[in-house]
Amino acid sequence: MNDKKIKMQLSCPMPKLDYDIITLGHGSGGILTNRLLNDGVFSLLKNNLLDQQHDGATFNLNRKLAFTTDSFVVSPIDFPGGNIGELAVNGTVNDIAMCGAIPKYLSLAFIIEEGLTMKEFWDILVSIKYAAEEADVQIVTGDTKVVEKGKGDKIFINTTGIGELNPKADIHEKNIRPGDKIFVSGPIASHGMAIMSVREGLEFDTDILSDTQNLNHLVKELLDEFGSKIRFFRDPTRGGIGTTLSEICQKQNWGINIFQKNLPILPQVSAACDLLGLDPIYVANEGIFITIVSPEIEQEFLNKIRSNEKGKKAQLIGEIVSEHNGKVVLHSAIGGKRVVNMLIGEQLPRIC
Amino acid sequence: MNDKKIKMQLSCPMPKLDYDIITLGHGSGGILTNRLLNDGVFSLLKNNLLDQQHDGATFNLNRKLAFTTDSFVVSPIDFPGGNIGELAVNGTVNDIAMCGAIPKYLSLAFIIEEGLTMKEFWDILVSIKYAAEEADVQIVTGDTKVVEKGKGDKIFINTTGIGELNPKADIHEKNIRPGDKIFVSGPIASHGMAIMSVREGLEFDTDILSDTQNLNHLVKELLDEFGSKIRFFRDPTRGGIGTTLSEICQKQNWGINIFQKNLPILPQVSAACDLLGLDPIYVANEGIFITIVSPEIEQEFLNKIRSNEKGKKAQLIGEIVSEHNGKVVLHSAIGGKRVVNMLIGEQLPRIC
Repeated sequence: MNDKKIKMQLSCPMPKLDYDIITLGHGSGGILTNRLLNDGVFSLLKNNLLDQQHDGATFNLNRKLAFTTDSFVVSPIDFPGGNIGELAVNGTVNDIAMCGAIPKYLSLAFIIEEGLTMKEFWDILVSIKYAAEEADVQIVTGDTKVVEKGKGDKIFINTTGIGELNPKADIHEKNIRPGDKIFVSGPIASHGMAIMSVREGLEFDTDILSDTQNLNHLVKELLDEFGSKIRFFRDPTRGGIGTTLSEICQKQNWGINIFQKNLPILPQVSAACDLLGLDPIYVANEGIFITIVSPEIEQEFLNKIRSNEKGKKAQLIGEIVSEHNGKVVLHSAIGGKRVVNMLIGEQLPRIC
Repeated sequence: MNDKKIKMQLSCPMPKLDYDIITLGHGSGGILTNRLLNDGVFSLLKNNLLDQQHDGATFNLNRKLAFTTDSFVVSPIDFPGGNIGELAVNGTVNDIAMCGAIPKYLSLAFIIEEGLTMKEFWDILVSIKYAAEEADVQIVTGDTKVVEKGKGDKIFINTTGIGELNPKADIHEKNIRPGDKIFVSGPIASHGMAIMSVREGLEFDTDILSDTQNLNHLVKELLDEFGSKIRFFRDPTRGGIGTTLSEICQKQNWGINIFQKNLPILPQVSAACDLLGLDPIYVANEGIFITIVSPEIEQEFLNKIRSNEKGKKAQLIGEIVSEHNGKVVLHSAIGGKRVVNMLIGEQLPRIC
């Protein structure tokens, strides 16, 4: 556990409770549910809207909205660099940001397997609290269900988010055209390799940490500066940048060239991929985005994104071309070329 | 299966696919996920917003919003009178309606246990399609995860909904005052007993069907007519009307009287409760609401709600009183009185 996480947890000590584990009764809708929510969720995540404690939250929003949902089933629930709680907040915050919107409100729904300890649940809640604060979103409504031992896997979390469209944004595939430049905001493949390192009991010489983080503030900064010169954002989670780029490209009357030598990757992540024979372009990410921008802002854009801590390792990785339509072609470091297809099945299940 | 359900399923035959069961690969984010979504979800639930197929949907809404989330883990996923798919749509639609809002958009997130058959999934999707149409809501964004065999239980569904506040609504506990009348919109305890009848392999002489249905159109009709004379709505799901009324009453400077003889309950449901020694006031409902209204509209309100098919068995069941503050007192059919507390633990797990 890193220093920041230890500090967070020290600042929110778990209250003394007369139960240590979560049981089916905590999902009954009765007194135990009520206590679990009051002891944990409401006390930690307190805000005016959540305090309404009605079946839903009500609020005003004045702009065009973005709405997105994601369930998180990552295993293990704790991994180097994060846990399922912050992943669930960051993941949905980032999906809203990828629409060119400013995330405002999240719902939070737990499916808990009977037997989860209250300590495990508390640690997740604390991470959720801080992730929400850092992303500047409010958790305003929620739900808790408990299933029998063996019918779940510790905890699954759904977060669903609402954001307001940034009036400067015009994010749409149809705006992409040949000549546009493709950037990635940071090193690839860190999240998937962090999960793999603990999942399979593999130990690498150096720590590989998940890249889970919010990207909404960085996205807003870029949109405020460059507006519709930014054509597209997407976060390459499951399936990695390979699958994401293939998806974007499908059915288009243009193609994508990617330059392998430009792909940022941390040395320890690259070494672990080599060791396991995995192609990093298919490994999941949770804290980077791919963006496609007008060629006229190429240099300015790179300067701007690198001036932000979360984009300091950004790279120009490729471009949109008017050839091999619908296909992504990777130009390898040693001069070869190959078509990048979508991942067929599962490289590594349950990474998010 | 009833005639309506058979008709629905006949109208949406499952396409011929080259896979019969859902595997981990279908949750990978790659080609298999893409195919599962295109074969199933997108083809059935088609609408302009869902067709955007971005990380999230974007749309305009002009009024104050209501936002609510619910995960559904009901077991079995098929039960007399419904299945987990329509339950997931109706449940969230109703939670939005209980806020005095008109449901507009839903997100839909699946956690599938590896091994679910495509036929089971398809039947759920068809039910979702029709439930959404009947409630007049659009499913605009979604997510699909697959977990290993033994780490889930066939399928869990999260739906999260956004609605627009009905400008005539002013639903809030603080508006409730002594003298107000309490109605229930239909017979109690049907859903819980329907689940129990199949769960425990119990067979009753007559069919007990879940009451799952949308209530949003009925709620809108009532709000349009009576506006702020309606103080409060809540759907008594987990914990039944007993727990729901106790919750509403908690910490208030008024109490609730309930008259047992007025509680509507179908004879076969009542008989099954007697047989199993269950108190129907604690048994879950999925298609009724409790509402608290100003005494001056008592008779008009009853006439109006009963003129709607979904409210035709509505009953006045009690009133708000300026005594036994914070407590619900049940006046039994034979003249006794008892305090109704919240259900402590679990009467019947996983009924929704």
